Amino acid sequence: MRRPFSQILLGRPLETAEASHQAIGKLSGLAVFASDAFSSVAYATEEILVVLALAGMVYLKISIPIAIAISMLLIMLTISYRQIIFAYPDGGGAYIVARENLGDHAAKVAGAALMMDYVLTVSVSMSSGVAQIVSAFPVLENFRVWLAVILIGIMTWLNLRGTRESSEILSIPSYFFLLMMFITLVGGLLRWVSGTLPMVEGVEILRDVTQPISLFLILRAFSSGSTAMTGIEAISNGITAFKEPRQKNAATTMLYMSATLLLLFLGITVLAHQTQAIPSPAETVISQIARTVFGRGILYLLILASTTGILILAANTSFAGFPRLAALLASDGFLPRQLTIRGSRLVFSWGIMGLAFLASLLVVLFQASVHSLIPLYAIGVFLSFTLAQLGMVLRWHKVSKLRTKKENDAFEPSIIYDRQWRWKQLLNAFGAFITLLVTIIFLVTKFEEGAWVIVLLIPILTWIFFRFQRHYLEVASELSLAGVHKNIGRRAVRTILLVDRLHASAIRNINFLLSLGISWEALHVSIDQDRTEELLRKWQDRFPEHPLHVLPSPYRSLTQPLLDYIVEIRQENPSAFIHVILGELVMESYWEQALHENSALVLELALRHLDGVVVTSVPFQLNRLRKEDKLNSM
Amino acid sequence: MRRPFSQILLGRPLETAEASHQAIGKLSGLAVFASDAFSSVAYATEEILVVLALAGMVYLKISIPIAIAISMLLIMLTISYRQIIFAYPDGGGAYIVARENLGDHAAKVAGAALMMDYVLTVSVSMSSGVAQIVSAFPVLENFRVWLAVILIGIMTWLNLRGTRESSEILSIPSYFFLLMMFITLVGGLLRWVSGTLPMVEGVEILRDVTQPISLFLILRAFSSGSTAMTGIEAISNGITAFKEPRQKNAATTMLYMSATLLLLFLGITVLAHQTQAIPSPAETVISQIARTVFGRGILYLLILASTTGILILAANTSFAGFPRLAALLASDGFLPRQLTIRGSRLVFSWGIMGLAFLASLLVVLFQASVHSLIPLYAIGVFLSFTLAQLGMVLRWHKVSKLRTKKENDAFEPSIIYDRQWRWKQLLNAFGAFITLLVTIIFLVTKFEEGAWVIVLLIPILTWIFFRFQRHYLEVASELSLAGVHKNIGRRAVRTILLVDRLHASAIRNINFLLSLGISWEALHVSIDQDRTEELLRKWQDRFPEHPLHVLPSPYRSLTQPLLDYIVEIRQENPSAFIHVILGELVMESYWEQALHENSALVLELALRHLDGVVVTSVPFQLNRLRKEDKLNSM
Repeated sequence: MRRPFSQILLGRPLETAEASHQAIGKLSGLAVFASDAFSSVAYATEEILVVLALAGMVYLKISIPIAIAISMLLIMLTISYRQIIFAYPDGGGAYIVARENLGDHAAKVAGAALMMDYVLTVSVSMSSGVAQIVSAFPVLENFRVWLAVILIGIMTWLNLRGTRESSEILSIPSYFFLLMMFITLVGGLLRWVSGTLPMVEGVEILRDVTQPISLFLILRAFSSGSTAMTGIEAISNGITAFKEPRQKNAATTMLYMSATLLLLFLGITVLAHQTQAIPSPAETVISQIARTVFGRGILYLLILASTTGILILAANTSFAGFPRLAALLASDGFLPRQLTIRGSRLVFSWGIMGLAFLASLLVVLFQASVHSLIPLYAIGVFLSFTLAQLGMVLRWHKVSKLRTKKENDAFEPSIIYDRQWRWKQLLNAFGAFITLLVTIIFLVTKFEEGAWVIVLLIPILTWIFFRFQRHYLEVASELSLAGVHKNIGRRAVRTILLVDRLHASAIRNINFLLSLGISWEALHVSIDQDRTEELLRKWQDRFPEHPLHVLPSPYRSLTQPLLDYIVEIRQENPSAFIHVILGELVMESYWEQALHENSALVLELALRHLDGVVVTSVPFQLNRLRKEDKLNSM
Repeated sequence: MRRPFSQILLGRPLETAEASHQAIGKLSGLAVFASDAFSSVAYATEEILVVLALAGMVYLKISIPIAIAISMLLIMLTISYRQIIFAYPDGGGAYIVARENLGDHAAKVAGAALMMDYVLTVSVSMSSGVAQIVSAFPVLENFRVWLAVILIGIMTWLNLRGTRESSEILSIPSYFFLLMMFITLVGGLLRWVSGTLPMVEGVEILRDVTQPISLFLILRAFSSGSTAMTGIEAISNGITAFKEPRQKNAATTMLYMSATLLLLFLGITVLAHQTQAIPSPAETVISQIARTVFGRGILYLLILASTTGILILAANTSFAGFPRLAALLASDGFLPRQLTIRGSRLVFSWGIMGLAFLASLLVVLFQASVHSLIPLYAIGVFLSFTLAQLGMVLRWHKVSKLRTKKENDAFEPSIIYDRQWRWKQLLNAFGAFITLLVTIIFLVTKFEEGAWVIVLLIPILTWIFFRFQRHYLEVASELSLAGVHKNIGRRAVRTILLVDRLHASAIRNINFLLSLGISWEALHVSIDQDRTEELLRKWQDRFPEHPLHVLPSPYRSLTQPLLDYIVEIRQENPSAFIHVILGELVMESYWEQALHENSALVLELALRHLDGVVVTSVPFQLNRLRKEDKLNSM
């Protein structure tokens, strides 16, 4: 059997029943969902230093207290997200929590915020990955954008093949990164303790002080560093991808992930401080630390390779999360319905391709510069964090009512009574307050550098979701059966056979009508006087008992006289169906099809807008059978 | 009534009955069909001088005998084309003559040759027109290509509006050109006779001699100058556009045209010689002559304006001829059938747009340089001249038989006996020989400069015509009714209603089936288990007497299970019609339509390739009526 190109590229189609086999365990889950969180280690420290360097090299040391503040925020978020995982066994994270507890509008805002950050995750991770490559091989400097776009293309292909296969591929580089980071931190620690840790050399020191040190600047550095936390919500969105017991596995994976991230982020920030790494557009901080600790040997190249690897995989978090979120939004009617369709490999193909397109667009627009992309990043995530926590606060409120009103059990069976609801509510409320504060800090400190784009885009996206919703609601209301059932019954049908020439296709049409055994009339639109006369002659010969009605077409249009005629006869009996029979010549190839007038298609597109008009097209395939065979099955 | 944009642009649609009113008289015909021939005066002399200049300025004087040779060729061609006009009252020129007398293959070669030359006429004329403008306004030098393409666009628009209106517009500049040329020639003659004619000054004299003078070079100059004759066949192609008596009017117009062309071409060549005009890429010979005779005053600008005007109009010859020829080729099945369709303004719109596209492409590729385009030009025309004359020789042979066999009258009634057939045959034979010789001279002397392109393209185009012809012949044979009439009769029909959800559109489908009064079965393709169960429940409620058959779709495809099912039931009864009923949701706008799965369209495109399958689509229009109205007409 010949396999189509799409199967060679993507693998054999998977049955729906195979979907559950695609579920992943804790360790694979860490590889698939945590790579985004881990990978931010590659740029979060550096972005803190970039901002502090504006006030002078002497202030780089403030990076340590900033990193500690970020770590505390991370611990708090981990606790509240574990609460969400246990509350929502079917996953969904911020979007679901907001929709269930805060309503449609908050859900749309959360959806818009999350979608934007998924796209930015891909753009930022790929750009940073390319920056690591360029640090090791400066000769590639001019190919940053190309490299990033090609890497996005490869990632898209892997994801179109499906989750399980990709998680197997992805586990190796993910753990390779953790191993290399462990070696880096231990190596750095040993050299520090033994007093042999050198300073970073060969990077141009920035001597220009452009801004005085200020609370604003420190908060801006904090904002940029908080990008370390992006991606930690991925697990709560993807609970359904885990093996059973899903919630427990997901919550445990979340814990592993946060602990690892904390260790890596603090470790790298401390090492950067100890080696006095200097933020530079030419070389990443990870590259500076690695070559300072281990020299420019094979270990240095392995560390950079593993960092590049994890960054590329980070994009994979979005390739897992974005299409799922888009499908959720689409099934709620906020996005085109096609996004809910799983492709032949059980993945949401349209979502994957949409993400790849948008992320590539950003990479090209921002020339693959991490530093230019950072001001847009993480705002969406923190806004969704806030909405999720607010939603949880309301949810605990419902739980509290359970105690008093038992009948709520039936009303909302998903809400389970929890003895410790009061503490958990307090924790979520605190989380909501802190993340709201952080969101505001982000907006204020990064507004001019690019956050204004997000301030514009979130309402625009929300409005677009609203328009989609309104459209689907209107359609659903028009299709709804309320009051329709009483209208089932017979109506008059007027069947009109459109005849152009009297050839084999026309004969097949007539055979079909005779076989149906319904009454019909023949109609011809006269464009060419000679042809019409010839047709009338032939028709008279063969079907003398069946009159052929001729419509004149003074302007040589096939469509307009027919439309006018149908409108006219509809007026005589507005409730009747007008049933138009068209013969359609079907060629084997598109170019052959293009050589014919394809009037069946043109007419069908014109007639479909008339109420009560039904179109039957009788295809007649050419070049497919030998003529004799065809004659036997006219 | 709101007029669509196309009507504002092109004018109101014209009735087929208005076609004959579009016929033109002798003077308008001269403007429409002769502008190509006249306009070549603007570059033919110059192209002779360009070639001769390669051997040195002293050899420019050879232009006079070359021009005389070309004039003799013109006289000979005029006589033979007048014979063609009288022999073929319905027009067609070389293509028709070749087809009638030499057969399909020669006709294809003639068609290919003529079509290429129509395209080149537009490209060369527009490029030369722009060269005149640039001679007067050197500041426009860098906009040559843009100017030429914009002018082609304007010409396209005028032609899409239709023949009569454009011939009125075009008569003025055509006669304006003849007037200005008359003034130039008389002015030049008077100054020459009175001994006050100055020499051309201010043009850089080419001192580099790159080639020795040789027969080859003289023949090449003759080839380039023979472009003066392009376009003289236009009248014989367009006889049907003339007022009655068509043949006499066309033949008289042909005579006027040739005499005028002869006078202009010889006059300009002699004046160029007397003023010692020098071929130059910066200034055209016409510009040099005009400013030398009259100085750089208003008269100079008027002469250049009129030359530019006639060149732009020359392109109009092709815009009149190319679409007619394409329609002829298409009605013979050598080109896509769509080229035979007259648009709302009674012109062959597709041919006009095709010509505009190809000519613009050439202008861009050759950077609007007349000198680069000339080597490709006129070969096609002379090849078609040869074929036409050969065809006429065979035709006179048929006429000679008339004398002996009277019964031929009935066989080929278009052939009228002519007492002087022997002389006329001799004349056409001589013409065929001379034009064949000229074609060979063209090919040999211009081969390296670009004629090789034509040598490649003519067989390729001929082959393409052959493929189109084969396709249409095959289709015609498959559609032919030979042996079919006995196959009229009833066959079994199995009507399958495809149900996705049970909403208003599905109810309308069922109402239609009930109204038709035929037996049917309901079928559902199960992609989502939950949705299928819901549908089965609802179906059981409403149509308990009608079973709903469910097809599983393990790979979530709607199409494949249905195709497999139909193939299966077709095997049970291969002669039966399978009649599939699809509900189709019709939105008001394309973007709304894109928000839905449009499975009716997708299924229809898949099903049309199955023999014996008939598809009925029942449109359900949304947003069009208020819901109450719709309920009344379910």
